[in-house]
Amino acid sequence: MTDQRLAVGAVMYPGFEMLDMFGPLEMLSILGEERVEIRMLAETDEPVPTAMGAALTSGPRVNVDATFANAGPIDILLVPGGFGTMPQLGNPAMIEFIQASAENARYVASVCTGSLLLARAGLLDGRRATTNKQFFALSAQESTAIEWVERARWVEDGKFFTSSGVSAGMDMTLALIRELFGVETSEMVAIGTEYTWHRDRDEDPFAAHLNGGMGMLGSVD
Amino acid sequence: MTDQRLAVGAVMYPGFEMLDMFGPLEMLSILGEERVEIRMLAETDEPVPTAMGAALTSGPRVNVDATFANAGPIDILLVPGGFGTMPQLGNPAMIEFIQASAENARYVASVCTGSLLLARAGLLDGRRATTNKQFFALSAQESTAIEWVERARWVEDGKFFTSSGVSAGMDMTLALIRELFGVETSEMVAIGTEYTWHRDRDEDPFAAHLNGGMGMLGSVD
Repeated sequence: MTDQRLAVGAVMYPGFEMLDMFGPLEMLSILGEERVEIRMLAETDEPVPTAMGAALTSGPRVNVDATFANAGPIDILLVPGGFGTMPQLGNPAMIEFIQASAENARYVASVCTGSLLLARAGLLDGRRATTNKQFFALSAQESTAIEWVERARWVEDGKFFTSSGVSAGMDMTLALIRELFGVETSEMVAIGTEYTWHRDRDEDPFAAHLNGGMGMLGSVD
Repeated sequence: MTDQRLAVGAVMYPGFEMLDMFGPLEMLSILGEERVEIRMLAETDEPVPTAMGAALTSGPRVNVDATFANAGPIDILLVPGGFGTMPQLGNPAMIEFIQASAENARYVASVCTGSLLLARAGLLDGRRATTNKQFFALSAQESTAIEWVERARWVEDGKFFTSSGVSAGMDMTLALIRELFGVETSEMVAIGTEYTWHRDRDEDPFAAHLNGGMGMLGSVD
């Protein structure tokens, strides 16, 4: 349970997946501005384009509330995934910001390939984590010190919450809201958003698609 | 089935609900920029704030791609809901834009209370439609010529697709993608986003919450 107002720092980069970001933020937004402040963060103050499939700069553009340099204290660090994750793995400004802000955050939550950025920042060494099922093979390359969980809607390990692909971020966020505000609140958020919450983090209907063909998503090579 | 590139016109206003918008747009974005163009529209070119619960201007702000005056031809008109819907019911610029662009659109899709804006524009007279369950009583006040369906995840009537609250927009959009591109494509989008698609539009787990207490959402009075 928590009484304080939570600062959510939402990390943007070109080609982040829009539902990775706005699914979790929707759930948090329902708690109201008295309990949550959402801060959209990026390396520069230019509006950040979301992904359109594998295209990194063609989707709707989201305004930046603060740059990494001026992000301020963050209680919940949210790192979405998407095709745009891949170039960010080689961006020191991104990795260093995630490292520094994760250290002081109460919770660090990633969606989809967002966990690759946490891994690159060294935050998941010695921990259990998960990621997008279609990109699972990539995660194993990040670090041998991470226990990547193949079958999981999301994984909790200490303050680190990592979810499977895209929609799984909503289920993970409801679990985080349950931890912060209690189960009645998380159930009311699910009802308010008419969302059928997958409450069981170990039940993963998409594990069958592990590294599977990429489907509509094209190739990352 | 369709071969042409679809122009999606996404209607923004202060206090639109972020998942009403970015759930459907996520599903469409997976089709890729070769098949879909997303155009974020608003009355003016100022970035538009999303809702934080009942607060209309505290959420993340989204950039405007074109104003109503320069919206261009639209194939799919997407109208989200949220607390911000209520003031827009009295905004002639909004209602007139929806009227005019709906006339030429191939499909008109609304999420949550977005259907109240379609109703106010007179587009749903003589049709079946649905809306957010917690605001259902409001819809009946709009027009006696509309058959409001209480128990539905979404309703299709000709080119008009109206969904229940927030998350239901994703299920509706997958149905629209099925109609446009076939069932294999819609299933691949659902898998790609790790989304458990509610395929049955008549199955509505949230009808039990009809006009129910408003919960976390506060009051619209």
